[in-house]
Amino acid sequence: MAKLIDKITPQKENFSQWYTDIVKNAKLVEYGPTKGMLILRPYGYAIWENIQKELDPEFKKLGVENVYFPLLIPESLFMKEVEHVEGFAPEVAMVTQVGNKVLEERLFIRPTSEVLMANFFEKEVKSYRDLPLLYNQWVNVMRWEKTTRPFLRTSEFLWQEGHTLHNNSQEAQEFTLKILKVYETFMRDVLRLPVVVGQKTEHEKFAGAQTTYTLETLMPDGQALQVGTSHYFGDNFAKAYNIRFQNQNSAWEYAYGTSWGVSTRMIGALIMTHSDDYGLVLPTKIAPIQIMIIVVKNTPELLDVAQELKTKLSHYRVQIDTTDRSFGYKMSEADLKGIPLRIEVGPRDLATNSATISRRDNHEKTVLDLAKIPGVVKDLFKEYDANLMAKAEAYSTQRTSKALDLVSYQDQLVRNPGYVLVPFCGKVSCEAEVKQKTATNSRCIPLPKKKNSPVKQLCFNCGEPCDLEVYFARAY
Amino acid sequence: MAKLIDKITPQKENFSQWYTDIVKNAKLVEYGPTKGMLILRPYGYAIWENIQKELDPEFKKLGVENVYFPLLIPESLFMKEVEHVEGFAPEVAMVTQVGNKVLEERLFIRPTSEVLMANFFEKEVKSYRDLPLLYNQWVNVMRWEKTTRPFLRTSEFLWQEGHTLHNNSQEAQEFTLKILKVYETFMRDVLRLPVVVGQKTEHEKFAGAQTTYTLETLMPDGQALQVGTSHYFGDNFAKAYNIRFQNQNSAWEYAYGTSWGVSTRMIGALIMTHSDDYGLVLPTKIAPIQIMIIVVKNTPELLDVAQELKTKLSHYRVQIDTTDRSFGYKMSEADLKGIPLRIEVGPRDLATNSATISRRDNHEKTVLDLAKIPGVVKDLFKEYDANLMAKAEAYSTQRTSKALDLVSYQDQLVRNPGYVLVPFCGKVSCEAEVKQKTATNSRCIPLPKKKNSPVKQLCFNCGEPCDLEVYFARAY
Repeated sequence: MAKLIDKITPQKENFSQWYTDIVKNAKLVEYGPTKGMLILRPYGYAIWENIQKELDPEFKKLGVENVYFPLLIPESLFMKEVEHVEGFAPEVAMVTQVGNKVLEERLFIRPTSEVLMANFFEKEVKSYRDLPLLYNQWVNVMRWEKTTRPFLRTSEFLWQEGHTLHNNSQEAQEFTLKILKVYETFMRDVLRLPVVVGQKTEHEKFAGAQTTYTLETLMPDGQALQVGTSHYFGDNFAKAYNIRFQNQNSAWEYAYGTSWGVSTRMIGALIMTHSDDYGLVLPTKIAPIQIMIIVVKNTPELLDVAQELKTKLSHYRVQIDTTDRSFGYKMSEADLKGIPLRIEVGPRDLATNSATISRRDNHEKTVLDLAKIPGVVKDLFKEYDANLMAKAEAYSTQRTSKALDLVSYQDQLVRNPGYVLVPFCGKVSCEAEVKQKTATNSRCIPLPKKKNSPVKQLCFNCGEPCDLEVYFARAY
Repeated sequence: MAKLIDKITPQKENFSQWYTDIVKNAKLVEYGPTKGMLILRPYGYAIWENIQKELDPEFKKLGVENVYFPLLIPESLFMKEVEHVEGFAPEVAMVTQVGNKVLEERLFIRPTSEVLMANFFEKEVKSYRDLPLLYNQWVNVMRWEKTTRPFLRTSEFLWQEGHTLHNNSQEAQEFTLKILKVYETFMRDVLRLPVVVGQKTEHEKFAGAQTTYTLETLMPDGQALQVGTSHYFGDNFAKAYNIRFQNQNSAWEYAYGTSWGVSTRMIGALIMTHSDDYGLVLPTKIAPIQIMIIVVKNTPELLDVAQELKTKLSHYRVQIDTTDRSFGYKMSEADLKGIPLRIEVGPRDLATNSATISRRDNHEKTVLDLAKIPGVVKDLFKEYDANLMAKAEAYSTQRTSKALDLVSYQDQLVRNPGYVLVPFCGKVSCEAEVKQKTATNSRCIPLPKKKNSPVKQLCFNCGEPCDLEVYFARAY
């Protein structure tokens, strides 16, 4: 027997519980038997499949090819890039044994695959003509976490990791920015997430990178969430793993690398940004079911109408709820699952050849001739998606403020939690101090960087003259 | 600088080396730093992506939903189904440590996910109305192997594993056969592999299954290769993991399960079955590049013609080889990579507005008007694919023989290595004896089982009366 929908804790009452209630009740995930490792249920995994369907062709347009590299990395190989090791070693899961046999060397489950890629590139690349190599893989990775939350922080997660190698620094740098653009367009046009795109400070950049770019988005509790990154390595990994090529003058040069990734964490951002106290709200391009047709009673006449409608809407992801549950239950479930449009057909509609279309975002209802319905869906989707974005953008703008010193910064964090733009010197030691004092850190130096540097200001923490303006925030 | 194509050892000279030369030279795989774990390079992974693209929608048509379950299985959970443990424990990789911390319980990297599914089903299922659950996941799994060969046997491999749960035995049994049919159709119509479909003997069935169905295909060295399986568990896992539901009479019953899978091993079967001493031969639906256009020289006129052709053929996977290598090299490489059709355009063709189409399977060349080319591709693909299948089927038929006793069986294995159909009692002890004496075992009891049992025969090994006819063969 289908369970009744459990109550969703109102967002205002307990944000964290609201989020957990939604991911559980909408049947996106279930906890697995190992702490911090989640089961992605069909409805949750379908969202990931739709993300892949939208994003993968965009990578391929840039010439990126998909590959699969092994799960395990020998310890000795992992240890070659010192910063990388320091960044990941404490959270790496290690295979030490197979059956009853203890292995001679420990094998690390990939927390990311720079090391394996570098090891391959070293053997593969001889000449500048062998470059660029533009690889991507959609895989599981593991980074052990003490406290975990569905989608946002789990010890195992799914992601795509791109790794590219170039014969000159400029091309590699440009590639990190091309990917950043792909991500930004995807976040805005598909996920309907307003993102701040920028560069990470020295303190926050990826272990082993020269430059890390990031996409940040602001959650309804005022905390920022990093939803994508693109790294320029320069020749850091090339030097550690001896990846060299002969240039056009037959001289040997180290190659230039990038890596970039987005993960199932985006699903967390999606849920928190758009959903409400009725449940999930999903943008149309990602929703596993875009339209749910619900009949007031399962009579043959009504089901016939529903079936006809479904056929006419078959280029959308459309379903009819034919279960034997009540009309009210079905409506609540369509809300809970974040289905963008609901079409309701009852006995009275039969007489007038009409049906009611109901939008999930604002619960607006319109009664329409059946014949007209297929013609309006496209525009309704457009309005719906635009509305999700407008709401999220309004929130993000409202929650962005400025501060010139640490006291007013901390004041903003309390009064209007969100992004705070501050003048910042960019020094690692200074940021460590801010972190220690406030339990917050920088999110990014926003792009595009202003062509004319702003007037020199004083760092909000150390007071040294500086010309950077940086977003700081509490973050996931 | 592009390397010259290395020599491929002729198949007749050294079958195993021929296979290795092809997978390396066609750039399908590279060896990773851990023994037995392969890198799937772009061209190899693209084949896997095409397999997914063809197979995944067929599962979904049966109502199967994709999911993702965790990589790691706690030891205590794994140990509940005794036969399953015995089958897999010796080859399981174990995580015992994270960073510097030793774990309290060892975690097994999934060799397959029955255990995690069962643990989930136990919590999920309450009523007969909650069933069936039809799940599938496309994931990596790990089974440690001593001797490995690309695609055929590796310690980590990619596969899909389907797991279903039903409220009655008949539906579950029927589902294993539905999936078997999906696999069979796919092998025949897409991969162009002739398969023998049948049931595994007691000796050979999956650890934990009541019935195992299999698809077997015969390699050019006379060895059989299992390319897919579908298992009916009855209530074995349900009893071990306490998966019960209330039936229509409100009584508690154990549920009935199935699992089924195919893996990257199919790529090995594909390569061995169709390829030749020039390199890969790939069926059109799986070939990452279906048509390669090669110009004799990279002149603007010829490249224009090539580009125009490419545009007209854009509903196929078509490329122009615009590299600066010689015409001969490009032709050899198209052969090596198993591209079904090659279109060659030279200066003389410009005058006559024609080009040469060359088939990879039989190297037949046809000179055709440029305008006619787009119209003939569909039929050429059809003939090409039919020819691959016909060749493979002829081989398989020729290499199938019968034997009535062990001496003639062993004689057949030498004289005409392949499938040998023998009368067999089906006993585990008898098969163990055959295995010990001949280093071969049964492949399957072919389906459909004959309605009228054949006249009683005597088991080819123990001489007991029996009514089974079973395929035995050497196998991978």
